[in-house]
Amino acid sequence: MARYACKLSYDGTDFSGYQVQPGKRTVQLVVEQALQTIHKGVHTPIVASGRTDARVHAFGQVIHFESTISMDTTSWKQAINSQLPDDVVVLNVHGVNDTFHARYDAVGKEYRYYIHYGDVPNVFRRNQSVHIKWPLDVPAMQTAAQYLIGTHDFSAFCAANTSVEDKVRTITNVSIQPVGQELELSFSGNGFLYNMVRIIVGTLIEVGSGKRKAREIEAILASLDRSQAGKTAPGHGLYLWEVHYDEEHFSR
Amino acid sequence: MARYACKLSYDGTDFSGYQVQPGKRTVQLVVEQALQTIHKGVHTPIVASGRTDARVHAFGQVIHFESTISMDTTSWKQAINSQLPDDVVVLNVHGVNDTFHARYDAVGKEYRYYIHYGDVPNVFRRNQSVHIKWPLDVPAMQTAAQYLIGTHDFSAFCAANTSVEDKVRTITNVSIQPVGQELELSFSGNGFLYNMVRIIVGTLIEVGSGKRKAREIEAILASLDRSQAGKTAPGHGLYLWEVHYDEEHFSR
Repeated sequence: MARYACKLSYDGTDFSGYQVQPGKRTVQLVVEQALQTIHKGVHTPIVASGRTDARVHAFGQVIHFESTISMDTTSWKQAINSQLPDDVVVLNVHGVNDTFHARYDAVGKEYRYYIHYGDVPNVFRRNQSVHIKWPLDVPAMQTAAQYLIGTHDFSAFCAANTSVEDKVRTITNVSIQPVGQELELSFSGNGFLYNMVRIIVGTLIEVGSGKRKAREIEAILASLDRSQAGKTAPGHGLYLWEVHYDEEHFSR
Repeated sequence: MARYACKLSYDGTDFSGYQVQPGKRTVQLVVEQALQTIHKGVHTPIVASGRTDARVHAFGQVIHFESTISMDTTSWKQAINSQLPDDVVVLNVHGVNDTFHARYDAVGKEYRYYIHYGDVPNVFRRNQSVHIKWPLDVPAMQTAAQYLIGTHDFSAFCAANTSVEDKVRTITNVSIQPVGQELELSFSGNGFLYNMVRIIVGTLIEVGSGKRKAREIEAILASLDRSQAGKTAPGHGLYLWEVHYDEEHFSR
């Protein structure tokens, strides 16, 4: 029995999120189906670094699974990709320690969010970037984002119905920059609460739209109150971009 | 009665091409439906610069229509966009002469074709760029493309079943350049035969893959024989990028 970690990229548009749900097409379902085919009908469960919601994308989601099949990692990549639908792809496969766990061993994550601004939407990015008709004050958004960096109780930026007790997280980096006709927001940290990035983005959009001042972020954080923050931004602009692990887990 | 020209952008993925066909979802159908709603149920036909096939996109298709409704062009744009599905958008509307004709008055067109090369596909561009696993010899493709520039009988690069008699066209410019992880091919000319760009691209891919030499293009052109050229490249990499008209047609 050997354990493998895979980096997955998926377009979340036609998935009801990552996690298996009865009767729904989910990322976990189609990847486990691909592995089951490779394992001649034997169910092969996968564990991801975390869930993603409906319409949310991943550039670099990481999952792990165990197998009795012995193949080099290039063959694993080809074998799994040959069984996957065209909206999910394995970018790479690594052999990992028997104790490696895609969720528990993740030491950091990067999420990105894409906003297209212009008077008309870009039809080619309609499911992959959120369209905002009005101009955004990017410097104000950048100023606001600085208040988020560091270790804070992010209760105000977490979906109110979450069962997680400890809402202290560390954001190590935020960058907001124009890329072509879009604004790319990147958030790196040791972990993120449920809907945290989308609530942060929703609040930053309100700052960029002149509805809030940049420094209100400080008071919102201090309030620990979800109702003080902005709306949850739509899922289809969000990407789980990268998951970080200590190198020691990867045998090669 | 006034005549208007609209520049349309559409994602061809979910359309059975541009032209109305019974029982099919086409670009012409959804745009005429939008205009019919605005005209309180009165059918308002549109005329395009040319058709596009199933899965082929447009960044700047041009259509014209006539209307008894008096509105400024900004209001027209908003009115039509409010009635369109999210895979078609009006980029702009211009008032034009009563004699303007989107097809007959087009003096030139630019098509683009996008190829993504890499060992795994980019899931986010799977419907908008053609994936090729192997590396392409871009300089060889650029050399080959030079043979296409000028006025030629493009019979060898035209679908064999076409009824058009005169297959002489002028290609004024071809550029092939890497853009991020993709190769962008641009073709400008006074007009293009049916499937001409896709057959040219299919042939250039064979050159880039080392299956043909760049200078074979000369002999293929001279043969006037479709069977001498390469395969027709898939529709989903192709974009009708821009249609050119003389300025005189546009009243503003």
